Amino acid sequence: MQFTEEQFAKHMRPINGSAIREIFKLLARPGMISFAGGNPSNTALEPDVISDLAREVLDKYGTTLLQYGATDGFAPFRESAAAFLNTEGVRCEAAEVLPVQGGSQAFDLLLKALVDPGDVVLCESPTFLGAIQAMREYNAKLVAMPTDENGVIVEAAEELIQKHHPKLMYVIPTFQNPTGITLALKRRKALAALASRYGVVIAEDDPYRDLRYAGEALPPIQSFDEEGWVVYMSSFSKYIAPGMRLGAAAVRNPLLLRKMVIGKQSADVHSPLLNQAIVDAYLRKGLMPAHLERICGDYKRQLNAMLAGFDRFPAGTKHTVPQGGLFVWAELPEGADGLEAFNRAVEAGVAFVPGTHFYPDGGHLNTLRLNFSMCDIPTINEGMERLGGVISNL
Amino acid sequence: MQFTEEQFAKHMRPINGSAIREIFKLLARPGMISFAGGNPSNTALEPDVISDLAREVLDKYGTTLLQYGATDGFAPFRESAAAFLNTEGVRCEAAEVLPVQGGSQAFDLLLKALVDPGDVVLCESPTFLGAIQAMREYNAKLVAMPTDENGVIVEAAEELIQKHHPKLMYVIPTFQNPTGITLALKRRKALAALASRYGVVIAEDDPYRDLRYAGEALPPIQSFDEEGWVVYMSSFSKYIAPGMRLGAAAVRNPLLLRKMVIGKQSADVHSPLLNQAIVDAYLRKGLMPAHLERICGDYKRQLNAMLAGFDRFPAGTKHTVPQGGLFVWAELPEGADGLEAFNRAVEAGVAFVPGTHFYPDGGHLNTLRLNFSMCDIPTINEGMERLGGVISNL
Repeated sequence: MQFTEEQFAKHMRPINGSAIREIFKLLARPGMISFAGGNPSNTALEPDVISDLAREVLDKYGTTLLQYGATDGFAPFRESAAAFLNTEGVRCEAAEVLPVQGGSQAFDLLLKALVDPGDVVLCESPTFLGAIQAMREYNAKLVAMPTDENGVIVEAAEELIQKHHPKLMYVIPTFQNPTGITLALKRRKALAALASRYGVVIAEDDPYRDLRYAGEALPPIQSFDEEGWVVYMSSFSKYIAPGMRLGAAAVRNPLLLRKMVIGKQSADVHSPLLNQAIVDAYLRKGLMPAHLERICGDYKRQLNAMLAGFDRFPAGTKHTVPQGGLFVWAELPEGADGLEAFNRAVEAGVAFVPGTHFYPDGGHLNTLRLNFSMCDIPTINEGMERLGGVISNL
Repeated sequence: MQFTEEQFAKHMRPINGSAIREIFKLLARPGMISFAGGNPSNTALEPDVISDLAREVLDKYGTTLLQYGATDGFAPFRESAAAFLNTEGVRCEAAEVLPVQGGSQAFDLLLKALVDPGDVVLCESPTFLGAIQAMREYNAKLVAMPTDENGVIVEAAEELIQKHHPKLMYVIPTFQNPTGITLALKRRKALAALASRYGVVIAEDDPYRDLRYAGEALPPIQSFDEEGWVVYMSSFSKYIAPGMRLGAAAVRNPLLLRKMVIGKQSADVHSPLLNQAIVDAYLRKGLMPAHLERICGDYKRQLNAMLAGFDRFPAGTKHTVPQGGLFVWAELPEGADGLEAFNRAVEAGVAFVPGTHFYPDGGHLNTLRLNFSMCDIPTINEGMERLGGVISNL
């Protein structure tokens, strides 16, 4: 007998993977300038530092790092991650930190713990592609919350909560992926209050927080949460190295933490101990502040070059002016076709991600996501020139 | 509002985590001899080797190991893992290998891809606790296949397939956890034929395969599979280091591989590249054969000491005589209470896992799982003496 699509779980059949992956295949063409990714710059990565730390922790802990570990985490890492999160304004103790395989796994474990098939999950629209896919894989019903230049509109979110009684809301509050928008302070307080009033778990996905190039840091939504409704999901992917696959979730509600641990037990038993120990050592040695200062200086110049490049674009193009993160979001004049622009841009040797892919319900063809972290400034200038030309000729 | 259990997905509410975890807490008592775990011996772990390899691969690949990688795996590791699996008798090419966070994740991804709520999954009874929990987390209905001293009874499995039309069958063919039993050659062929005839995916979980201390290796079920129904799940946890969390699944059906990759995209994006590169280097340097020879020599002596220790047990106790792996399975005379034996054994300073925990439907109170890999021979002798005394006095 031959295996067919009919063998898959019903809700999994239409899930065919990230559109971005197909785009990434095009990036291998010679001379292609990529504004498509979401990676840190290679110059932000420190293989020599990681190599020294690997030796140091293997010398220090020996076989402990190679044996099975506890699902709820390597104790020293839970401590140093809690201390790091505290400096971010997150309220948590070491025992409330769950090491995860990047922020993605924290959200996956939350979905596993909470979602019955058909349950509504509220999210921003546009939002992170990986989160859209994760919600679909747990057979959740995605309902988009209206947003503006200050993030989620709280009154609209409240109406949706009253209408749909969701168990879970997914929010990227700082330098959002894909828009670069930051949720305003008042709205952070208000969302925390909504979570508590209506009994909605908020998944606060905040991996870009420390990539700030202007303005003042805002406290996380989690900092206003008195009752443990907000799960704060941090990651070391954008700060240290995505290839290490290590993040930390702060989960103050012990019932919820326990159920996420149970989900992780059967998913992957625990996060690799070597990776936890390396990041632990990185934090304890106090390497993070100077490292962030260095990479933020570089990223700021790259962002400014990209923003300046919009003067090559036709009148009527709007774009965000993010205070940090890795992305700028552009809206072409109504009626412009971003997919067509994408095809022509690739021919002209520059790639981006059409914004439509970030909308749970599609549409919004006139939007684009541009990343600036992976190109140096001359390349950004050249890429914006090419892209501006393509779009002007649409 | 306070968070309550009612917020969890319905099928997740009764899942309260591994019984073994509670047992592990008791092991910290001073003087406790543990036959409860399933860890490799600390003497089998090589922190200096791993440390040297970490430096070597970070020198060689640099930032590549710290950037995002492909979900379907780090190309050199896929190659060396395929070559390793080929020596095991597994039919696969590099492009059919999916790196996973231990064998557990391969099974998790299969469940995610295939199982609609209430779908039947066939499994051995007793079977691996983590697999039982994983199946429950995907809201599968577990149906136990009858087994004997040669593993799954094929005729009985066929009847269950005809009755339940399962999408998935979970089998641990070699030195099974918890029994130590190895599935006979004829039955391996017959199960592969059943999978193909009825359209059932077999998850062949084979992490103990190379821990063989007697007898001849048997070809995997997967080697008899012509149509890609068998997913072979290997792991480097028992061979190199569980703390690294790295396994490899061979998935010859491209539809199924693609859907597992999609599931992994949103679960954890990819397996950590440093860990893939370290194991890749380990394999390419040809370190595995001599390492396995050394650890199998030690484990064989430990197993023999444990088997000899059964002469301290009362007449009527039966036990398996495994040809490899990490576990011996004992059956006390009918009516004996393994949970009571456990409590008294802990008082006497020796721990094991009551066999009832490994049965999807409970019962079988007179069974015990004993692990020998974590104790040296004098400790095994002393532990078996204590345990034999406790059981004789029940």
